[in-house]
Parts: sequence; C-alpha cells; structure tokens
Amino acid sequence: MTSTLSKGGVITSPLAAADTQVVGVVLQEALTDLIDLSLTAKQAHWNVTGPHFRSLHLQLDELVDSAREFSDAVAERAAALSVSPDGRAAAVAAAAQPFPAGYLADRDVVGLIVARLESTVHGLRRGIAATETPDPVTQDLLIGITAKIEEHRWMFQAQLSA
Amino acid sequence: MTSTLSKGGVITSPLAAADTQVVGVVLQEALTDLIDLSLTAKQAHWNVTGPHFRSLHLQLDELVDSAREFSDAVAERAAALSVSPDGRAAAVAAAAQPFPAGYLADRDVVGLIVARLESTVHGLRRGIAATETPDPVTQDLLIGITAKIEEHRWMFQAQLSA
Amino acid sequence: MTSTLSKGGVITSPLAAADTQVVGVVLQEALTDLIDLSLTAKQAHWNVTGPHFRSLHLQLDELVDSAREFSDAVAERAAALSVSPDGRAAAVAAAAQPFPAGYLADRDVVGLIVARLESTVHGLRRGIAATETPDPVTQDLLIGITAKIEEHRWMFQAQLSA
Amino acid sequence: MTSTLSKGGVITSPLAAADTQVVGVVLQEALTDLIDLSLTAKQAHWNVTGPHFRSLHLQLDELVDSAREFSDAVAERAAALSVSPDGRAAAVAAAAQPFPAGYLADRDVVGLIVARLESTVHGLRRGIAATETPDPVTQDLLIGITAKIEEHRWMFQAQLSA
Amino acid sequence: MTSTLSKGGVITSPLAAADTQVVGVVLQEALTDLIDLSLTAKQAHWNVTGPHFRSLHLQLDELVDSAREFSDAVAERAAALSVSPDGRAAAVAAAAQPFPAGYLADRDVVGLIVARLESTVHGLRRGIAATETPDPVTQDLLIGITAKIEEHRWMFQAQLSA
Amino acid sequence: MTSTLSKGGVITSPLAAADTQVVGVVLQEALTDLIDLSLTAKQAHWNVTGPHFRSLHLQLDELVDSAREFSDAVAERAAALSVSPDGRAAAVAAAAQPFPAGYLADRDVVGLIVARLESTVHGLRRGIAATETPDPVTQDLLIGITAKIEEHRWMFQAQLSA
Amino acid sequence: MTSTLSKGGVITSPLAAADTQVVGVVLQEALTDLIDLSLTAKQAHWNVTGPHFRSLHLQLDELVDSAREFSDAVAERAAALSVSPDGRAAAVAAAAQPFPAGYLADRDVVGLIVARLESTVHGLRRGIAATETPDPVTQDLLIGITAKIEEHRWMFQAQLSA
Amino acid sequence: MTSTLSKGGVITSPLAAADTQVVGVVLQEALTDLIDLSLTAKQAHWNVTGPHFRSLHLQLDELVDSAREFSDAVAERAAALSVSPDGRAAAVAAAAQPFPAGYLADRDVVGLIVARLESTVHGLRRGIAATETPDPVTQDLLIGITAKIEEHRWMFQAQLSA
Amino acid sequence: MTSTLSKGGVITSPLAAADTQVVGVVLQEALTDLIDLSLTAKQAHWNVTGPHFRSLHLQLDELVDSAREFSDAVAERAAALSVSPDGRAAAVAAAAQPFPAGYLADRDVVGLIVARLESTVHGLRRGIAATETPDPVTQDLLIGITAKIEEHRWMFQAQLSA
Amino acid sequence: MTSTLSKGGVITSPLAAADTQVVGVVLQEALTDLIDLSLTAKQAHWNVTGPHFRSLHLQLDELVDSAREFSDAVAERAAALSVSPDGRAAAVAAAAQPFPAGYLADRDVVGLIVARLESTVHGLRRGIAATETPDPVTQDLLIGITAKIEEHRWMFQAQLSA
Amino acid sequence: MTSTLSKGGVITSPLAAADTQVVGVVLQEALTDLIDLSLTAKQAHWNVTGPHFRSLHLQLDELVDSAREFSDAVAERAAALSVSPDGRAAAVAAAAQPFPAGYLADRDVVGLIVARLESTVHGLRRGIAATETPDPVTQDLLIGITAKIEEHRWMFQAQLSA
Amino acid sequence: MTSTLSKGGVITSPLAAADTQVVGVVLQEALTDLIDLSLTAKQAHWNVTGPHFRSLHLQLDELVDSAREFSDAVAERAAALSVSPDGRAAAVAAAAQPFPAGYLADRDVVGLIVARLESTVHGLRRGIAATETPDPVTQDLLIGITAKIEEHRWMFQAQLSA
Repeated sequence: MTSTLSKGGVITSPLAAADTQVVGVVLQEALTDLIDLSLTAKQAHWNVTGPHFRSLHLQLDELVDSAREFSDAVAERAAALSVSPDGRAAAVAAAAQPFPAGYLADRDVVGLIVARLESTVHGLRRGIAATETPDPVTQDLLIGITAKIEEHRWMFQAQLSA
Repeated sequence: MTSTLSKGGVITSPLAAADTQVVGVVLQEALTDLIDLSLTAKQAHWNVTGPHFRSLHLQLDELVDSAREFSDAVAERAAALSVSPDGRAAAVAAAAQPFPAGYLADRDVVGLIVARLESTVHGLRRGIAATETPDPVTQDLLIGITAKIEEHRWMFQAQLSA
Repeated sequence: MTSTLSKGGVITSPLAAADTQVVGVVLQEALTDLIDLSLTAKQAHWNVTGPHFRSLHLQLDELVDSAREFSDAVAERAAALSVSPDGRAAAVAAAAQPFPAGYLADRDVVGLIVARLESTVHGLRRGIAATETPDPVTQDLLIGITAKIEEHRWMFQAQLSA
Repeated sequence: MTSTLSKGGVITSPLAAADTQVVGVVLQEALTDLIDLSLTAKQAHWNVTGPHFRSLHLQLDELVDSAREFSDAVAERAAALSVSPDGRAAAVAAAAQPFPAGYLADRDVVGLIVARLESTVHGLRRGIAATETPDPVTQDLLIGITAKIEEHRWMFQAQLSA
Repeated sequence: MTSTLSKGGVITSPLAAADTQVVGVVLQEALTDLIDLSLTAKQAHWNVTGPHFRSLHLQLDELVDSAREFSDAVAERAAALSVSPDGRAAAVAAAAQPFPAGYLADRDVVGLIVARLESTVHGLRRGIAATETPDPVTQDLLIGITAKIEEHRWMFQAQLSA
Repeated sequence: MTSTLSKGGVITSPLAAADTQVVGVVLQEALTDLIDLSLTAKQAHWNVTGPHFRSLHLQLDELVDSAREFSDAVAERAAALSVSPDGRAAAVAAAAQPFPAGYLADRDVVGLIVARLESTVHGLRRGIAATETPDPVTQDLLIGITAKIEEHRWMFQAQLSA
Repeated sequence: MTSTLSKGGVITSPLAAADTQVVGVVLQEALTDLIDLSLTAKQAHWNVTGPHFRSLHLQLDELVDSAREFSDAVAERAAALSVSPDGRAAAVAAAAQPFPAGYLADRDVVGLIVARLESTVHGLRRGIAATETPDPVTQDLLIGITAKIEEHRWMFQAQLSA
Repeated sequence: MTSTLSKGGVITSPLAAADTQVVGVVLQEALTDLIDLSLTAKQAHWNVTGPHFRSLHLQLDELVDSAREFSDAVAERAAALSVSPDGRAAAVAAAAQPFPAGYLADRDVVGLIVARLESTVHGLRRGIAATETPDPVTQDLLIGITAKIEEHRWMFQAQLSA
Repeated sequence: MTSTLSKGGVITSPLAAADTQVVGVVLQEALTDLIDLSLTAKQAHWNVTGPHFRSLHLQLDELVDSAREFSDAVAERAAALSVSPDGRAAAVAAAAQPFPAGYLADRDVVGLIVARLESTVHGLRRGIAATETPDPVTQDLLIGITAKIEEHRWMFQAQLSA
Repeated sequence: MTSTLSKGGVITSPLAAADTQVVGVVLQEALTDLIDLSLTAKQAHWNVTGPHFRSLHLQLDELVDSAREFSDAVAERAAALSVSPDGRAAAVAAAAQPFPAGYLADRDVVGLIVARLESTVHGLRRGIAATETPDPVTQDLLIGITAKIEEHRWMFQAQLSA
Repeated sequence: MTSTLSKGGVITSPLAAADTQVVGVVLQEALTDLIDLSLTAKQAHWNVTGPHFRSLHLQLDELVDSAREFSDAVAERAAALSVSPDGRAAAVAAAAQPFPAGYLADRDVVGLIVARLESTVHGLRRGIAATETPDPVTQDLLIGITAKIEEHRWMFQAQLSA
Repeated sequence: MTSTLSKGGVITSPLAAADTQVVGVVLQEALTDLIDLSLTAKQAHWNVTGPHFRSLHLQLDELVDSAREFSDAVAERAAALSVSPDGRAAAVAAAAQPFPAGYLADRDVVGLIVARLESTVHGLRRGIAATETPDPVTQDLLIGITAKIEEHRWMFQAQLSA
C-alpha cells in the first residue's frame, strides 16, 4: 500500500493548488514526526528507571498528551485542505528517529528526550517559514505547537546538571 | 537498534522466570497490536468520507481512546513483571496490519475496522488461554480488554446492512 | 410475537456456535432476572412506609441503579455474541418473581428484598459455573455483577434484627 | 397477587376522595405505559442494526432516560396522593404494546418508535384533560412530560424520508 | 414600622391593578408561610433526638432548602409585579404557626412536620385557585411549589407507622 | 425566498389542523421576537458606556442567554407540531423593533431595554391566552418564558431612579 | 410556647455546667441575631431599587449566604453543648432590629446594612470576650464569624461616598 | 435609524485613525456575516429532516456555538478599537445570504451549509490580508476564526458522497 | 524497634526546645488516639447490624474521614516542629482503647462510639490547655479538631433515646 | 477482648460452610496486612527526608489511598460472607511487619517499601490460589488488588539505581 | 545583587544568539511591566471606595488574574530561550509606574487604570514589531497578550462618562 | 508618592484607635513580606535548574499560591480595619530580602527558600504576639497563615540531606 500524498475526493481546498501542495507537505512531515514523538515519549515513560523515575514518568506523559493533541490538530488541518493525512505505522516508522531499546537510566532519558525535541523544533520552525505566504492559518497552528514544544524542551533541558 | 525482549535491570518479577517469559511474550504482542490499532483508527478518523462521516469520526475516536488506554495498561503490566515493553515505531510497524492510504468511503471504513478488530480479538483470546496458568493477574487484564474490544466490534459490525 | 433466542443477522459471534448457545442462554436468563429485580426494587422504593421509610427509599434506588446498569451490560454482552437479547415486558413478566401489591411496612420490605436478592445470587452463581469454559469474558462479567449483588444482599440482611 | 388500586395505609390525600380516585387512575395508566416505553426503547437500543446503528443506539438511550425519569415522577406523585403505584412486571406486561423480537433494521426501528410514542402522547393528552379540574398539580406534571415526549416523537419522525 | 402592602415606586405591574392586588396578597401570604416553614424545619433539624436523628436531620435540611428556594421565588415574583414583599422577622412571626421549644423526640418531629406541611399545602392550593384568572404565570409558580411540598409531605407521612 | 408558514413534510401534528394553525402562528411570532430580542441585547451589550458599563454588560448577556434558550425552545416546539419555524435574518428583521445605532449611555440603555421587554411580555401574554384551549402544552411553555422575561424586566426596571 | 434555654435530654455537655450556661447564652443571642440578619439582607435583596440595584442585589445574597451558614454553625455548636437552640420566628422577632418596609433606594440600603452589620459585630465581639475562658472552641467559631462579617461590613461601607 | 460606522464617544483607539478605519470595516463585515451564519445554522438545525436528522441537528448546533462565540469576539474587538459594532436585525438582514424556507432534506442541508461556509471563509481570508499591516492583533483573531470555520467546512464537505 | 520521641535530623523547630518538647508530646498522643479512632470507627462500620444499619454505616464512615484527615494534620504538624510522628501499628495498639469483636447491634454501637469520642474530646481539651503558651499555632489546630469531634459526638449522642 | 473469627448473627453466607471458612481466613489475613500497609505508608509519608522528599511524600499517599480502599473492599467482602472482619488496632499490630522509627532518608524508604510490598504480593497470590475453587468472586477481588499492588511495587522498585 | 540579563547555564536557545538577545530584552521589559501591573491592580482592588466599589473590586481582580497569567507566560518563554527572567521586587520597582497611596475614589480609579493600561499596550505593540523577524513564536505570544489587555482597557474606558 | 499608613476616608474601624494603629502596622509588614515572598518564589520557579527541576518548579508554584492568597487576606483585613494597605512595587522593594539573580542550581534553591521562609515565620510569630490583645480576629488570621507557612518550610527543609 502506498502512502503518497493523495488529493481528497469530495474535499476541496480553500487554497490555490500550488499553495495546497506546499502546505500539505509541511503538515504531512509534522504529522509523522509528532506521532513518532508520542511513541518515543511513551517508550521512555514505560522504561525509565532510577531515583527520578516518578517525576520523569509523569512528565513524559504530559509530553505524550501534547504530541497526541498536536498530531491530531495537524492531521485535521491537512484533511481540511483536501490533503489526506498518512499516520499509519509504516509511514511513522519510515520517518522515525532511533531510540534505544530496554530499560533506561533517568540520567540518560533526559538527554535523549532533549535531543528528540530539538529535532522536532527544527522541523516546526522550517514549517513556520514555509507556510507564511501560502497559508497564515497553518502557520499560526505551527507557531502554537512550537511554543509548547519549546516549553517542553526547556523543562527537560533544565534537568541537566550545569 | 534491536527490540528484543530485554529483562529489566533493577526490576524483578513476582513470577517464576519461565512464567515471566510466557507472559512477557503475550504482553509484548498485545502491545504492538494495540498501538497499531490506535494508529489505524486515527487514520480512519481523519480519512473517512460520506454521509456517515460525523458518526464514524466520533466512534473511531472512542476506539482510539480504548486502544491507547489498553496499550498503556499492557505496557505497564509488562514493566511490572520486569519485561521491558517495546512500543517504538519500528516495532509497531513490524507487527502492523495493512490499511489503505487516502480518503475512504464510510461504507468501506466499517468493514475494514470490523476485520481489524477481529484480528485483535483473536490475539487477545490466545493470550487469555496462554496466561491462565502462569499469571491470572495478567489474564484478568486481557479479559477486561477483550470485553471492551468485542463491544467495539459489535458496534461497528451492527452498522453493516443485513 | 415470539421471544425465542434469535441469532443475529449481520452480527457474528467470536465464539464457537455451541459455546455461543450456552452463553446466550445464561445471559438471557440473567437479563430478565435483572430487569425484574429493577422493577421490584422500584416498586418497593415507591410503596415502603414506616419509620425507616427514608433510608430504605434511598437504598432501594441504589439497588435499582445496579440492576439497570447490570441488565444493560448483560444485554450488550449478548448482542456482541450475536445473541439478540429479549428484555420486553412479556419476557420479563414470564420470568418475574411474585411481589406483594400495595403499601408495605419497612419491616416487611427488608425481608422481601433479601429473599429476592438470594434468588438472583443463585442464578448468577449458576451462570458463573456454566460460562467458565465456553467464555471467560462473560464469566468475568457475571463475577463482577455477583460481587455487587452480594454486597447489596449483605446491606439489606444486616438490617434484620438478630 | 392482585394489582388493584390500593389506598395507602398511613398516607392521606390532599385531594377529595373522588378527585383522588380520578387522578389515581390516570397516574397508574401513565406509569405502566412509561415503564413499558422504557423497556421497549431499551429493547430497540440493543437490537437495532444498519448504517444508522450508532445514532439510533444513542438516541434510544436518551428516550430510556426520559421514560425512566417520568415513570418515577408519576409513581411518586401517585404515592403522594395516597394511591399505591403498581409498576411490577405483571402490571407492565398487562398494559404493554407489542414490539417485534430479534434484531431490527434501523429503517424499521424509527417507524416502530414513532408509532409507540404516538400512543403515549394520546394517553398523556387524555390524562391532561381528565386531571384539569380534580388536580392542576398532576395536570402540570403531565403537561411537562407530554412536552418532552412530543419532542422525542418529532426527533424520530424527522428521520423518516419525505 | 408598618408592613402593609406597599406599591413599588419605579416598578410597574404587567397586570391590571385589581389583578395585581389579588395576586399580591396571595404571594405575600405564601412568602411569610414559607419563611416560617424554613425556620421551623431548621428548628427541628437542630433539636431532634432519638434513634432516627440522623435521617431526620438530613431530611429536614432538604425541606429547608426547598422552603428557602421557594420563598425567594415567591418574593421575586411579587417584586416583579410591583408588590413589595415583606419577609422581615415581625411579619414572619405574625404569620407563624406554633412549634414546641427544646429538644424533640424523633417520633414527635415527624407528626409535627406533617401537620405543618398540611397547612402550607392548604394555603398554596387556595392560592392556585385565586390566581388562575388574574395571573396564570403566578399560578404556574404556585403549582410547581405545591408539587414539591406535597412530595415532602408524603415523605414525612410515610414514616408514620400504619 | 418566501417565509410563509410551511407545513412539514414528514412531520405530523399531535393537534387537530385548526389548533395547529393557531398555535403555529403564536410560536412563529414569539420566535422572531425572541431572536430580535437576543440581537438587541447583544447590541446593547457591546455598545453600552458609562459608570455602570460593567454591570449592564454582564446583565445584558444574561438576557441574551435567556432569549437564545427560549427562541430555541419555541422553534423546536413549532417543529414538533409540524410547523416549520422561520428564524432567518429577513424574517427577524421584518418583525424587529427599532433600536438606536452606536454607543449608548448606560442611563439610556436601561430605559430602552425595559421598553423592549415590555413589548415581549405583551406578545407572550397574548400567546398564553390564545393557546390555552388548542394546546396547553404550548401554553405551559409560554408561561415559563413569561415568568423569566418578567423577572428580567423587573431587574432592569429596578435600576430606574424613583 | 416558651423559648427559655432548655437543657438537652440525652445530650450532655463536654463543659462544666457553669461554663455551659455562659456559652449557651452567647450562642443563643448570636443565633437569633444571625437569623434576623439573614431575613433583613433578603428583605433588602428583594426591595432595593436604583442604578446600583444589580450589584447590591447580588452582594446582599452573599451576605444572606454567610448569615445562614453561620446561624447553622452557631445552633449546632449550642446543640453539641446540650443547649437547645431556639430559632423559631417568635424568638427571632423578639430580638430583631427594625428595618423599613417597602422598596428602598440603593443609596439608603448601603447605610442601613452597614448599621445592621455594626450591631452584629458588637455582639460577636462581646461573645468572643465572654467565651475565652469557658470554651476556646466556641470562641474560635465566633472569631471566624466575626472575620467574615467585618469583611462584609467593609465591602458595604466602602460604597459610601467620602 | 442609521447603522453607519460610528466612532465611539469615550472610547479611543490604540491604532492610528486610518488603520482604525480599515480594521473597523473588516470587523463590521465579519460581524454581520457571522451573525447571519448563526441564524442560518439554527434555521437548518430546526428544519432538517431525513435519516441523518439527528447527526446534522447536533452538528449544526456546534456550528451555531462557533458562530456566536466568534461574532461576540469580533464585535468586542471592534468596540475595543472605538468602532461601534452594529449587529441589529436590519444590519444582519442587509448582509444576509439567501437560505430556503421550510423543512429541508438532510442531503440538501449539507450542500447548502458547505456553500454558506465557503462564503464566510472567503470573507475572512480577505480580512486576514487587509489587517496584516494595520493591526496584527485583529489579524490573529481572524486567523483563529478561519481555522475553526475551515474545520467546520471540512466536516460538512466530508459528508458529500464521492 | 523503639518508638520514642525522635528529634528530626535535618528538620529544625521554629519553637524553643522546651516548647517543642511539650507540644511534641501532645501531638504524638493525639496522633495515636486519632488513628485508633479511625480503626475503631471502621470496625464498627463493617460490623454493625440491625434496623439502623445503613444510617450508622454511612455516619461511621464520615467519622473515619474526619479521624484520618485529623491524624494526618496532627502528624504533619509534629513533623514541621522537628518531632518525628509515630503512627505505626504497635504505637497505635499500645494506646488503643478496647472495642468488642464481632458483629454488633446498632443499639450498642451508638453507645460505644459516644464513649469512644468522649475520651478523644478529653484528650484534645487537655492538649488545648497544654499548648496555649508554647505554641498557639498547634493550639488552633487542636481547637479546630475538637470542634468537629464534638459535633460528631453530639450526632451520635442524639440517637440515644431520652 | 478476643478477635477470633466470629460467625455473623443475622448474616448468612452464599457459600457452603467449609468454603466460607477457607475464604474467611484469607480475607481476614489480607485485611490486617492491608491496614498495616496503610499505616506503614503513612509513617513513611510523614518521616521521609532527603532530596526526593516531595516525590516520595506524594507517591506514598497514593499507596495509602490504595491500601485503604482495598482494606475496605476486603472487609466488606468478608462481612457479606457472614465473616465478621477484625481490623482493630490489636489485630493489626499482631500481624504487622517491623518498620523503623524516626525520620528516614529517601534512599532507605524506597527499599523498605519495596520489601513491604513484596510481602503483601506474596500473601495476595497465596489467597488467589486458595480461593479459586471455593469462591471465584473473592478470587476476582484479590486479583484486582494484586494488579494494583504490583504496579505500586514496580513504581517504587524502578527508583532503585541499577 | 545585579539583575542584568543573564544567559542560562545548561539552557540553550533555539534562536540565533543575536535574535535571542533582541527577544530577551523585549520579554524582560514585558515581564516587569506585567508584574507591576498586577501589583497596581491589586493595590486599586484593595483601596477603591465609592458607590462603584464592588464592581471595580471584582473587575480589578480579573485584571490581576490576566497580568499574573501573562507575566508567567512571558517569563517561561524567556527561560525557554535561555534568557534568565528577573521578576524580583527590585527589578519590578525599578520599572514601576507611580500610583497614588491610600484609599481612592472609584471615579479616580477608572482613569488611573486606563492610563496604566495605555502604557502597557504601547510597550506590547513595540514588542510585537521588534520580535516579528527574530521570533514569530514570541510575537504570537505578545499578540495574544495585547488582545486581552486592549479588551481590559476598553472595559475600563467604557466607564468614563461621555 | 508616600506610602505612609493612611487612615481610610469612609471606612471606620471596629477597634479602638490605638488598637487599630498596632494591628495596622503588623498587617502592613506582613503584606509586603508576603508579596515579596510570592515574587521570590516565582523567581525561583522560573530559574531553578538541575535534576530536581520539575519537582521544585511545581512545589514553588504551590508556595506562590499560598503567598498570594495570604497577601490578599492580610490586605483585605487591613482595609476592613480602615488601614489602607500599601502593596505597590516600591513598598515591596523597600521591604524585600535579597535573592540571587540568574539561573540557580536546585541544591541551592532549597536552602535559599528555607532561609526565606524562616524570616517570614519570625515576622508572623511576632505579629501573633502583638495582636493577641488588640484584635484576636487578626491574630487568628495570622495563626492560620503561620501554620501553612511552617508546613511549606518543613517540606523544603526535608529535602536537605542529613
């Protein structure tokens, strides 16, 4: 089964065709990244160990909540622009970033998550730049997501020892 | 990165080693199946079209909620038995079942989801049989999940025309 | 109109045919018993008199709530197994147990309800035994119902003077 | 056991005896009709099939809620007038209207429920006329119930194709 | 200070003057009766003793809640008809019904409250008759209050031994 | 496009044809009046100025809430009687009452709203009289609306200086 | 019927007899004062007019809430000390302070309420002094009431023009 | 009565006069369009018929909620910029778009609402462009409204058969 | 293991050493008494029988809630004063008061609980006197606890027949 | 006072006498163990110190909540089987496990609680095996408790450094 | 102690260094301004007097809530950009605007707060312009704050007499 | 602008002039100390770093909530005594205690906050002593604040390593 960018049957776009194309690519990339982020944060939520277990276990679930809420918003924005979103396991795995298997020490989890969020921030900021002209509505959505993801990034990064 | 069944550092199991092994395999299989189910149901939630769009859009999100809640319960049960759960994108994709890309007619979505749930039910009932002796606590968890998944299955199947 | 056990059109059972038959009979019997229990408890709720009126009036409504919740769970479990549930007035009346008409003294209501619950407990415990092999999922549902009904039974029985 | 209209021991009526008699008959008839309506709507809730399953399944439960709430209000009004209400299974079955057994297609359920509600509306409007002089308090209760039942009737009738 | 029926400065009545006069007298009488009822029920709430203390203590507070809510509704209805309501202590005391001082046995409280509610019901039913022609809006308010007060009356009366 | 009183396709009336006609006209008139009232109260909510701005701004929104809730109840009652309600902008404007443009001083807003509510009360009381015989259910709805609108009227009128 | 300070049958006091006597008198005086305060604040709530109607109408109801809550606390404290509280209409009227009949201008209501609260504060502060030695538990209750009543007093007094 | 763009007495604008003028026109146009949208969605909510009645009835009320919330936000933004908003019936009717009278089949309602939302989206996107330079705060408000209206548009459009 | 009053490592006291000593003893005694009270009330909650079973079962759980909340407050106050609280089973048993084993008649439970609360009140009042000078903050906590325990005592005592 | 297993007056068992005996012993042992666990977790909650104080303080209170909820469920199950539960201080102390007095370092608390939970898990798993034949209803209760206790055990054990 | 703009140890910025510098200065200025605004609004909340006391007292607390929420958002945005926020009393006082001491007449408070908000609006609009290029995420935050502050400004300004 | 203790225009004190003077000074000192405490805790909330970041970040916000709630209570108590409270930035800064700028290691934050709370406790205990005679109502307020601040102090101090 292919996961190419399929234009949507009965759904039409409020944007010009070229703009829809540009914005659609940005949203699809954000979608798989955010789903992978939600899976990664859950993986860490289950496998973290060490004296800071409980605090990280809870904090990672808040990150899962954000990632799930944002992936839904991004996918529905794509659908509303007549761009069929692809969030199937294969599409997510193709775009996924490596994360170690097995139980993880709390001191390692923080660093891994900071690096993972860094990557998401870079993707989102590229998307903000790319959508400014073709669709300020999508841009505004990405700006809101970036604000929250950068807040999560700070809250993990602040746990690193100076 | 490997996703083999890793035994967990500081965590010990309340079960005998052989029982832990059996139960761990069941839980890991249920985990990737349930995560894939949540991704599939979200995919359908975003891509369904047709006169029954709204009803299915809402019903599929209830299925997503169940699948997410159960995948978390299954993973945490594994972790409590010293079996590191693997819910990373690659592990999920490796166990995933095919689902068509693009927008989908409502009449097709119902059939696809019924088939998808059928498969989950079979896996869960195998797990119920396999865990009865080694761990009735895990068995009870799987029974509860099966009850709800079979309810979802009925509620989609009942939408097929006689 | 007949109320025989009708197999359900588009709905299929996750169980083997013989198991479905056994489990379906248990669920149908539990259904009419629980609906009758809800009607009986309401009847007592409206007709109780005496110094303990208020306490029993409230307690009986809690029993109504349990009986309604459980009859719904039992009927939906049957439907999910392709067994059409029959909760129509005639079916309930055919299975109903006698209960006196008119206003009732509080001292009499307690004894009547204890006896009524005793009967429900016996039926449920027969169902638990009968469903263990064909369907542990249904058995688990009946176990949960029995636990609560036996709690109600204790709370009424404890009001009898030693 | 008889279910004749029993006058209530310690309870006295705020109405004259003849008025109590008239109003008591109206309330008792409304009571068994509303309980039967609640059982019928639950029966349909469990047995409906077809593409509109989910919407009707939910809507029928809202009708169950109304019918239960109103049967309780009607029975407690009777009790407050020293008229013992009879809501036992036999009394309900004696007054019940036929409803088909087994699974039902959604297109048939709508028509059956509209006809069932039609009958309840007629009974209630007769009760409104009959209670105006003997007890405006009971009349006001019946008016409120009629308003809601007629709203339910519209919401099912509106689903019939023109 | 006098507590005569004062017509209200800037407030005008939506009714004719004669109708306002009739309805105003009914509402003022209901007001002082309901405030006195709230004080009496509180008095019993504090002073009841005996094995049924707790049940009556709670039930009496529900009566207080009703009486307070209704006295407010009645007074605001009067104000909306340009009839200044008088709920001052002296006005209430002038219309109050005797109630014994000191601690009271539970067996006595029930009878006293039933008698007290009887009196309120009679006044309200007189008001329903008197307001039917001049103001159906006020009549509807009194009907609603009567329904609830008669329910309270039943719930206390049902505690008397047959 | 015409906005004449259209009889409703699949919907039938529980009333006789002539009664439906009478009641339908009353409900349609109440509908446009209540929608216009909601628009007028919002207009004042946005444009009021002066030292009492905040109190009136909040109070007017409570009036908007009432007017919206009642217009919905009235329209759904019409629909339930097979009378298609017309709440389109043109129908509302045709029945609307003049209200000044631009910012308004608080001292003027109170007087304008009192007059506006006076007019609604008159229409509702005419409707109460007209519906008593053909449909006591509709009459009861209009009585309930009148009670609340007269309460709003008092609460604005009470702000006029004596 | 007399309303003398009756000692309570089955209830005994945790205090010495003389201390109970002193504290009982303080609580009974606070009780009738607080009930009268609640009636007075309601009277003003219904009868206030003028541009500040709405703000005072709401604020007076907050005072009613405080007065009712405190009168209940005071009466239950008395009962717990074996002192039967007397909150009947006659007892309240005997201790009540004069308040004008009829509609009242907002500018006058503020002054009247400030004076009324002043009186309550004086009584409470006398009670605080009188109960310090015999019962610090009652004293603590009165201190808490005084803190809130003085807050109400400030919030009304602050509305007087300098 | 005129409904010209009136500058607001005591209110001043945080923007330069020319910018206020441009932004004010955009907001006034959005205001009448959104109020008309709310009236149109309510009209459809009451008049829809057919098998999809219930789903559309509920969905249209969610659109009403959005339209009302946004019209309030737009009007208050105008007021905050010293531009008196005009949401009176006449102003709305002058800007309203035609919508058919009488009961409407569900298959027709979906198409009518999609077209109606299309028009609102075009107006909002013109407003986003027009306000970018003079007032990014207003632009941000319009972007947020557009995101939600385009989501509504998708959810109706997705119900059209491919 | 010893349960002597241990001074707390890193925690320091805001009081002088002698005052800390005095207050610490009072708090430790209150702690074991309140934990024992919570266990005793639960024991009665489970074992009460007789016609008043339900009312006492509920009332005893409210006493358990109070006792648990207060034991936590007392222990945390001790900890905040650098006095390690000892609430282990052995410490509680050493200070516990006898309570009969097995099922208990409701008529007996009331008397037993009144006596048990009497004892707690005496201990608390000794603590109020002892802490007045060394620590008014602790004294205020004990006063608040006493007020509630004396209320519980009244509510049980009031159930004794005169 | 003795705390032997007392058979319960008016309460009868739904089980055979021998089964009641077996199940009763299991439930009584679980009861004292769970109460002791709740006391131990509270003791640690109050006395923990060190950098992880806050996280453990909160986590231990969640364990207290579980232990209290489960001890109540176990005791009420015993009572429902006519086995009088004994949760008095002496019975708990007799079955209690040692726990150190005084303030405790966070690093030590985690290990102590893991060991304490290990013991509870062993007892519960013995109870699951012992009750399977005599009473599957009690077994199901114990399975549910074990699932949650093993989850707590994991969440503490995961804090140990690898 | 210095309050210079300190760059943050372990925290890194997602922006280029120069952009971080520009945005950091804007955020720090907004922070102290918003904290000072919250202190000023509280000061007015406590010291306002006059007939409009209550309305302003409540409205000022809503402004305090906004100012506190926004100062927290601004500070956390700074921290997320590796710019240590300085909200200490000295920093706030250095940036604070004068506000008169003592009680204030309501007529004066409105004018003072309008002027105070004017100043905040100017600062925020400068910040919107300055952050557009270096960080659209921060700009979006400032736009949202400005929208709300300008709404507050309108709601106070509208209270000035024309 | 001066911040001397200004006596309040229309507000009068329930205390004698000398007592008002003494109590007013205590409350004003507590006010600025508590506001400074809230600013300091927020400063730490934003600037803390290290492995315990998240736990301290949350705990510090609970301290902010307490400090804000108490500063409001203290200021309103002053206002109720006719003492104008001064919580302006300059007054707070004049009374503020030094706190380091920039990011702070978690190990340092705990010590700094313990010291800061120590100082607040000392001030409050001086205030408790000073207000006992002139105003027990204010004293009771300060006792309640002290109890909570000493609890916060313990919860931070307990994080220091022994």
